[in-house]
Order: sequence, then C-alpha cells, then structure tokens
Amino acid sequence: MHDDNYYMKRAYEQAFKSYNEGGCPIGAVIIDENGDILAEGHNHLVQEGSPIIHGEMDAMRKAGRMKSRRHVTMYTTLSPCMMCAGTIVQFKIGRVVVGDTVNSAGNVDFLEERGIKVTVLDDSDCVELVKRFRDEKPKLWLEDWGGE
Amino acid sequence: MHDDNYYMKRAYEQAFKSYNEGGCPIGAVIIDENGDILAEGHNHLVQEGSPIIHGEMDAMRKAGRMKSRRHVTMYTTLSPCMMCAGTIVQFKIGRVVVGDTVNSAGNVDFLEERGIKVTVLDDSDCVELVKRFRDEKPKLWLEDWGGE
Repeated sequence: MHDDNYYMKRAYEQAFKSYNEGGCPIGAVIIDENGDILAEGHNHLVQEGSPIIHGEMDAMRKAGRMKSRRHVTMYTTLSPCMMCAGTIVQFKIGRVVVGDTVNSAGNVDFLEERGIKVTVLDDSDCVELVKRFRDEKPKLWLEDWGGE
Repeated sequence: MHDDNYYMKRAYEQAFKSYNEGGCPIGAVIIDENGDILAEGHNHLVQEGSPIIHGEMDAMRKAGRMKSRRHVTMYTTLSPCMMCAGTIVQFKIGRVVVGDTVNSAGNVDFLEERGIKVTVLDDSDCVELVKRFRDEKPKLWLEDWGGE
C-alpha cells in the first residue's frame, strides 16, 4: 500500500500522457482496499471524440463491472465535474482524492454531503498542468467542461 | 418535427433491442431543434462490460463533440440516474423527456432546479419493459443502478 501522493503521481502521469497526445490533461486511478491498482485512465475527448470520457470515466470503464465500489478509492488530478461527481455518487465509490481544486472548485461539497470521503491534495504538478492547458487551449477547455 | 411520443418510441426501440441482447433495457435519443435525430443509443453494461454506458451516455458519445447542447432534447426511457443527471447538467442539455418515473423516481427535481426543462411521459411501454426486466434479472438491475 502506497500513500496518496504515489497514486496521484500515477494519475498525473496519465494526465501528462493525454497532454502529449494533444488531449485534455486529466487523469484518474482507481485502487482497491489493498492499494492494488484496478484501473488507470485519462480524458479522451480529443482521442475518441467522446465528450463523456473524462479521466474518471475512463478509469471507471476500465475497472469494469463490480458488485460494490464502497471499498475503492478514486484518484483524480482535477476536481470532478458534475458528470463525474454524479457517477461517483451513483456507483457509491468509498473515497475520492482530488489533485486540483484551483482550476475547478468542482463538487467536493456535493460529494461530501452524499457520504463520500474526500481528500484534497492541491498537488502543484496537477494544478500547473491544467493551468498551462487552459492558457494554451481555452476553447478545448471550455468544450471539455460542457460547452457554452 | 415529430411529437414527443414519436421520439420516445424510438428510444423504446433502442431499449427493447438491448433487452433482446440480454442487456439492460434502457434507451435514449438526442434530437436537435429541427427534430433531426443526432444519436440513438442504449445501455451497454452487459454488451461492453462497461458500467458507465447507460442509455443516455451511449447517445451522448454517439452525438459526439458539440460546442453547445442548449438546443438539443434528450429522450430517455427511464428517469436518469445520478450519473446521467449530472451529465445532462454538466453539458447543459436544453430539455429532457422522461419515459418512466415509476421504476425510478430519478432526478427530475435535480434537473429542474438547475434550469433543465423536463417533461415526464410515463409511457406504459417504457414502464412495463423495465418492470419485466427487474422481475427477471433483479441482480443485474441492482448492478446497473450502481451496485450494493
């Protein structure tokens, strides 16, 4: 079992991979109660032309079918949008660790009010990468975040 | 431009297709302001082994990238779960027509409080199909709805 910073670094590597592919730099990792990684993923808006595959959603589909997700922790480099926050609540994910609430305050309150444990790291690598992306590709950022 | 019942019937046909494939019988259709169909889809939990591809999400990915979705209407045979309701809010879908609030009261209030126009049809075909599915495959219904 590693610490939160280790798994967030893994999520960041997914985000950076997507950045290098010309995509949106947001990544996510899902682990089980033993710290074993069940899935790693990143945003695929550009790569698949799919608006619904945010980093969290890519990790969710890769983790696949499960009877329960109360024992899992999701690491996400950026605070979840309303789609991803709704997904976390619907699938009863036990805990969420957020890498960046600077570029998006996200839905930390929404999650906590519904019984999800949330830890905010505000990791400087995560924050800086999305800041750079927003400066470089503001239209893509807007589109990824739901459009006009 | 057809009426709401026409598009809901199309969404139902998607749901019934999924039922016949052994999957979860929930379908969705997205149209633009002229009534042209942008996408039709259905739940793919069984077909793709992916928990995140509910009917609404399948239609969203098939409609693909868009700058704005304020002009579109989504038809869904079953009232949206928290994931799909969050998606509708995040992507600012103008209007949602719901085929069934009997099997799931869903998130009609959640959507309306966030400015989404919602019409509830409670179409008997939609209601009966999910009722049958719940009776036949209660474990799959539970899994699709987020698990334990």
